[in-house]
Amino acid sequence: MPRQVREQQIIDVAVRVFAQRGYHAASVDEIAELAGISKPMVYLYLDSKEGLFLACLRREAARLVAAFQEAARGAGAAPDLRLHAGLAAFFAFVAAYRDSWVVLHRQASEPSERIAAAVADTRRAVMAEVAGLVKDGIDDVTGGEGRGARLGAEDADFVAHALVGAADSLTDWMERNPGQSPESVTVRLMNMVWVGMRGVLDGEVWLPDG
Amino acid sequence: MPRQVREQQIIDVAVRVFAQRGYHAASVDEIAELAGISKPMVYLYLDSKEGLFLACLRREAARLVAAFQEAARGAGAAPDLRLHAGLAAFFAFVAAYRDSWVVLHRQASEPSERIAAAVADTRRAVMAEVAGLVKDGIDDVTGGEGRGARLGAEDADFVAHALVGAADSLTDWMERNPGQSPESVTVRLMNMVWVGMRGVLDGEVWLPDG
Repeated sequence: MPRQVREQQIIDVAVRVFAQRGYHAASVDEIAELAGISKPMVYLYLDSKEGLFLACLRREAARLVAAFQEAARGAGAAPDLRLHAGLAAFFAFVAAYRDSWVVLHRQASEPSERIAAAVADTRRAVMAEVAGLVKDGIDDVTGGEGRGARLGAEDADFVAHALVGAADSLTDWMERNPGQSPESVTVRLMNMVWVGMRGVLDGEVWLPDG
Repeated sequence: MPRQVREQQIIDVAVRVFAQRGYHAASVDEIAELAGISKPMVYLYLDSKEGLFLACLRREAARLVAAFQEAARGAGAAPDLRLHAGLAAFFAFVAAYRDSWVVLHRQASEPSERIAAAVADTRRAVMAEVAGLVKDGIDDVTGGEGRGARLGAEDADFVAHALVGAADSLTDWMERNPGQSPESVTVRLMNMVWVGMRGVLDGEVWLPDG
């Protein structure tokens, strides 16, 4: 069996075990056994428990980003439809690949500096992707000028942070409301933020002193 | 020196050390030394490294929730002003007590089940507080009936998750944009979500098919 295939099999099992047990409690012994491969072979292929976890993190992050990008790109030119498609792909991914999401979402920055750095890289990639879409949305509504002067790259980055944080957090809400489809979560979120963004672009501004 | 005072001193130091080093790399030896107290005494008061971390987590979470509640309650009756005041207090807390925020925000669910449970409790308390404010906001705009039938407790919980997730994530944006005051971050976020919520309540709904 080619090394490439073997590695993917080990990573498949490792994602499941890390998601179920958490990084510290997960054991390479168990992963090796479930993958039907010797422990030295796991170390040969993926170096260490940390290396194994990094491989899981990178593969699942790449899948998630690809799902978002492909959906957004396939949704035509309108930025709101592209954002909607991207978010729908995100929530569908989380619903379908629970273990992948647990590995990406719940294994914070603690285990090691390399893992913390990999998590930060992933988040930056997602943020840049979303900020790009938001910037297009702003340019689309404003024609890239006039009212657009009020909202630029810094604002797009702000909106992207708010949006990504909201989407992260809503995966918990989705878990507690299993009757809600990924699509309905997406439309709700679009309504919260897109209507608000459009309102702001149309000059509707909330200020604490009225 | 009374035990109560002593404990608070140890926790002061521990928050700093956990924030700087992370849970796993932090050592009770260093905490004891910096607090000017013997290591056995630290164990006597706070039981274990885990107990010490839980004490940090609980104290800082209580402070953050209290800051949010007090600000929201002191801001009069209007739900948007209460939400604004609460969010402003949140961002001001994060800016002023960086170490507390790192302990609350970055030390995810990994170290142990007890810590994961304590983090989840904190998040639930914050969520309930925000959901209450949002529900008041909905009732205020709708008079508790009519259009309000469209948005109920489930929606308030949805908005609270989105809002708390957005605020969490925006603390990273704030860190990278040190020229932005907590107040300006708050007003931006209010504009994104409050204008959107009001738009939805006024019947402006975004749908993927136009």
